[in-house]
Amino acid sequence: MKIARLSYENNETYGFVNGDNVATKDEITYLTGVPIPQNVKDFLFDGWYDEIKNKIKDLPYAENISKYKLLPPIPNPNKIICLAFNYVDHALEQGLEAPEDPAIVIKPRTTLNSTESDIVCPDFVKQLDYEVELALIIGKNCKNISVKDASSVIFGYMIFNDVSARDIQFKDKQFTRGKSFDSFAPCGPWITTVDEIKNVQNLKLTTKVNGELRQNSSTNNMFIKIPEIISKISHVMTLEKGDIISTGTPAGVMLNKPNAVFLKDGDKVEMEIEGLGILSNTIKFVKSN
Amino acid sequence: MKIARLSYENNETYGFVNGDNVATKDEITYLTGVPIPQNVKDFLFDGWYDEIKNKIKDLPYAENISKYKLLPPIPNPNKIICLAFNYVDHALEQGLEAPEDPAIVIKPRTTLNSTESDIVCPDFVKQLDYEVELALIIGKNCKNISVKDASSVIFGYMIFNDVSARDIQFKDKQFTRGKSFDSFAPCGPWITTVDEIKNVQNLKLTTKVNGELRQNSSTNNMFIKIPEIISKISHVMTLEKGDIISTGTPAGVMLNKPNAVFLKDGDKVEMEIEGLGILSNTIKFVKSN
Repeated sequence: MKIARLSYENNETYGFVNGDNVATKDEITYLTGVPIPQNVKDFLFDGWYDEIKNKIKDLPYAENISKYKLLPPIPNPNKIICLAFNYVDHALEQGLEAPEDPAIVIKPRTTLNSTESDIVCPDFVKQLDYEVELALIIGKNCKNISVKDASSVIFGYMIFNDVSARDIQFKDKQFTRGKSFDSFAPCGPWITTVDEIKNVQNLKLTTKVNGELRQNSSTNNMFIKIPEIISKISHVMTLEKGDIISTGTPAGVMLNKPNAVFLKDGDKVEMEIEGLGILSNTIKFVKSN
Repeated sequence: MKIARLSYENNETYGFVNGDNVATKDEITYLTGVPIPQNVKDFLFDGWYDEIKNKIKDLPYAENISKYKLLPPIPNPNKIICLAFNYVDHALEQGLEAPEDPAIVIKPRTTLNSTESDIVCPDFVKQLDYEVELALIIGKNCKNISVKDASSVIFGYMIFNDVSARDIQFKDKQFTRGKSFDSFAPCGPWITTVDEIKNVQNLKLTTKVNGELRQNSSTNNMFIKIPEIISKISHVMTLEKGDIISTGTPAGVMLNKPNAVFLKDGDKVEMEIEGLGILSNTIKFVKSN
């Protein structure tokens, strides 16, 4: 299933996506007779999705999705965890060695952004860069989970752009501030549930800037594979329903490139991961006061 | 005013602290006739505190605080932002230069811990360290606030121990994972409102480990002063009611010390900041599975 958060005339809802069409919360309630909750996190993680998922074979998907604005799929996640570095091809281009453990950065929830929205950047940032990443959405609270059991806590997947101000990263050495600007975490366009993806460790992922291919890799290039990422992080912190873990970016970012062309006002960044849709954003620089 | 979150027989409440005594939510409601809300964040930041604060001169403070367990003062903050480095004396001991901007790390809310609780550390961590810090509690949502107006968004202060696994920090280079273990953010013991502190940039702060003085400095040793910290961070991200900003630690931590004695099982860590109380925790190492 593909589950999107939607907005129409400032009213929020959610629904299932099928091609260009959508079955919203009201349509699902009408068909199933189940009064599913208003809050998408309650719907997804408190048993309601499991209750209705076998009752929806005949949904008419009555509306065209273009009627709605798509919202970030998870509102107010407790954590947005980004792996600092986890791809073999990215390691080669940066001269880095294989990581033993997942080094992480946490983005504040105020970074959340949706597809078809602006990435808004103050003009004191001089080196704005993209990072296409596969993000996991955690469906169960867990701590100290084994590698063997780790896949069972994933609810679904989405595309995640770990937007980064490289000049701030270099100045601070710590990456957090440069990755924490409002709007620096476009994600979605929706959640794709785990059952829809046959082999999550073999998905093509790309970034185009103004139509030019910049990143082109596969999730099979991860050093630390997904079950191990979850297990290792859960040995540090309790993972909670709705937490987002973004699994690192492949080669092709502008970081440390001798002739780097950083993002500029008006650039269109389009990211695609096989089976998960397209995440599309426009860069907007604003004067800082 | 000093405002504590309290628990008694698994029932949560909050109240005003006066010496060894406390006036709980029920006592405040009884005296003022104002039905203040159950949730302390609603009470503090949605106008209720402002409504009753001039009506409570005659509170009897009927109960002894020892009846209650103290809880982390802010439940589920949207952000816990820690400055990576901001003290002149700490810079001298580490051979660092003055920062122009506040480099930050974000801790997940699952790190939150209270006074008189254990700091629980898995035994794969080999270099556990303390960091006494003055934490600010943000009382108003704000973005791009000026230095001049920044103090107006602070609701209060508390002590914050930015517990850090140095071996993990060094391995990752990024500090986030080593600071993100469950229980690694003891804070409190309560919130002290801004009006109680005459000069927040001149408070003595200390750490004792098993009674031995390890950190002993003053908030006047900060490179970046508090209004500038808030203004600079708000030019990156929207600050929200209840956000915690911890302002960095002074000299005396074990980081990079040639004969470092890291924390071990059973150690008692006692932190004090002038006017804000005492934050006391015990180290507990547990076998990792």
